[in-house]
Amino acid sequence: MAEYILPIQRLIEEFRKIPGVGAKTAARYAFAVLNLSESEAFRFADAIVGVKRDVHKCPICYGLSSDEDGCDICTSPDRDHSVICVVEDAKDVMTMEKVRGYRGTYHVLGGALSPLDNITHEDLTVKELVDRVEKGGVKEIIIATNPTPKGDTTAAYIARLVEKYPVEVSRLAYGIPVGADIEYADEITLLRAMEGRRFYGNNRSDK
Amino acid sequence: MAEYILPIQRLIEEFRKIPGVGAKTAARYAFAVLNLSESEAFRFADAIVGVKRDVHKCPICYGLSSDEDGCDICTSPDRDHSVICVVEDAKDVMTMEKVRGYRGTYHVLGGALSPLDNITHEDLTVKELVDRVEKGGVKEIIIATNPTPKGDTTAAYIARLVEKYPVEVSRLAYGIPVGADIEYADEITLLRAMEGRRFYGNNRSDK
Repeated sequence: MAEYILPIQRLIEEFRKIPGVGAKTAARYAFAVLNLSESEAFRFADAIVGVKRDVHKCPICYGLSSDEDGCDICTSPDRDHSVICVVEDAKDVMTMEKVRGYRGTYHVLGGALSPLDNITHEDLTVKELVDRVEKGGVKEIIIATNPTPKGDTTAAYIARLVEKYPVEVSRLAYGIPVGADIEYADEITLLRAMEGRRFYGNNRSDK
Repeated sequence: MAEYILPIQRLIEEFRKIPGVGAKTAARYAFAVLNLSESEAFRFADAIVGVKRDVHKCPICYGLSSDEDGCDICTSPDRDHSVICVVEDAKDVMTMEKVRGYRGTYHVLGGALSPLDNITHEDLTVKELVDRVEKGGVKEIIIATNPTPKGDTTAAYIARLVEKYPVEVSRLAYGIPVGADIEYADEITLLRAMEGRRFYGNNRSDK
């Protein structure tokens, strides 16, 4: 890749540090930056530095916050602080927030249990979650870890940990995505959709 | 997209200014930057500013140069300065440089003629190319504009302009890409490949 002059090569290498960006894409991006005006390039550079400078961890939910004292959700009087939705990553909070109906709070674990990667409960904010429950006022925990083996293990682990507290624990339903075609669903998803099937009205056997 | 906190939202918007980067990709990139260390983020930001600060236009070929006085190719005694390869964009120089066999120099037009977009010969470095030829010492011009209508027009225009000088003018061959299957070549490419066919040895009719 020595065919680029040094300043461009340097920027290409920086872009390549982003997961999923290969050599060709990085070169395309570097040339796009070259086409920006000087003030636009400064603004871009400042936004990169700014994201490291101005983004903090919320000391309550461990999600991202522009305020060191607590994120907008944890400090909002409009949210239901008796409900905690537990997610793996800070990004998941934003994904869940798209579900406009949810008015509870969050707890960001910072990953999922993974013995193979040496990620144990000590690397996650599990203790901090239990502390929140212990303090009282929490009525429900909705576990929204990913539908993966790691996410499953983490969900089961958390469910067991908070068993002794008077708190309802649930996990997001597995199933066929809305709008998707059954034909394209994989077998495991279909199996989970069967297991989690919901009965209509009167004739439920366990009623 | 108000679900992201401001510093992240700002960076997402900067990434979105890159052509081809949509909202989801930009968000993914912004979070990747968030995962960089502070010093890595600074290096990234500096590379962006640096590309604007340290990249100059070569005053001879109008390609990109890290030196204001001339690019590595134009100032190299190892290159054949009697051959000029004419390309549309500075990026094309790097593409052509991958052809390790080429030892001549370049001339970057800065685009292609396009009356519909109001791009005339005055927007391109056509005059500067003719000046180089006029100065003497140039024996051959290889036109490597893109195989598009705009590139064709530009190539024909340049060929006519330098007609009066004692210089050989050629254009890159059109044809089937090496390693490609004829089955997948479009008709225009096939037609051009037919027109540009090369004869083997003895039985050439025009010999």
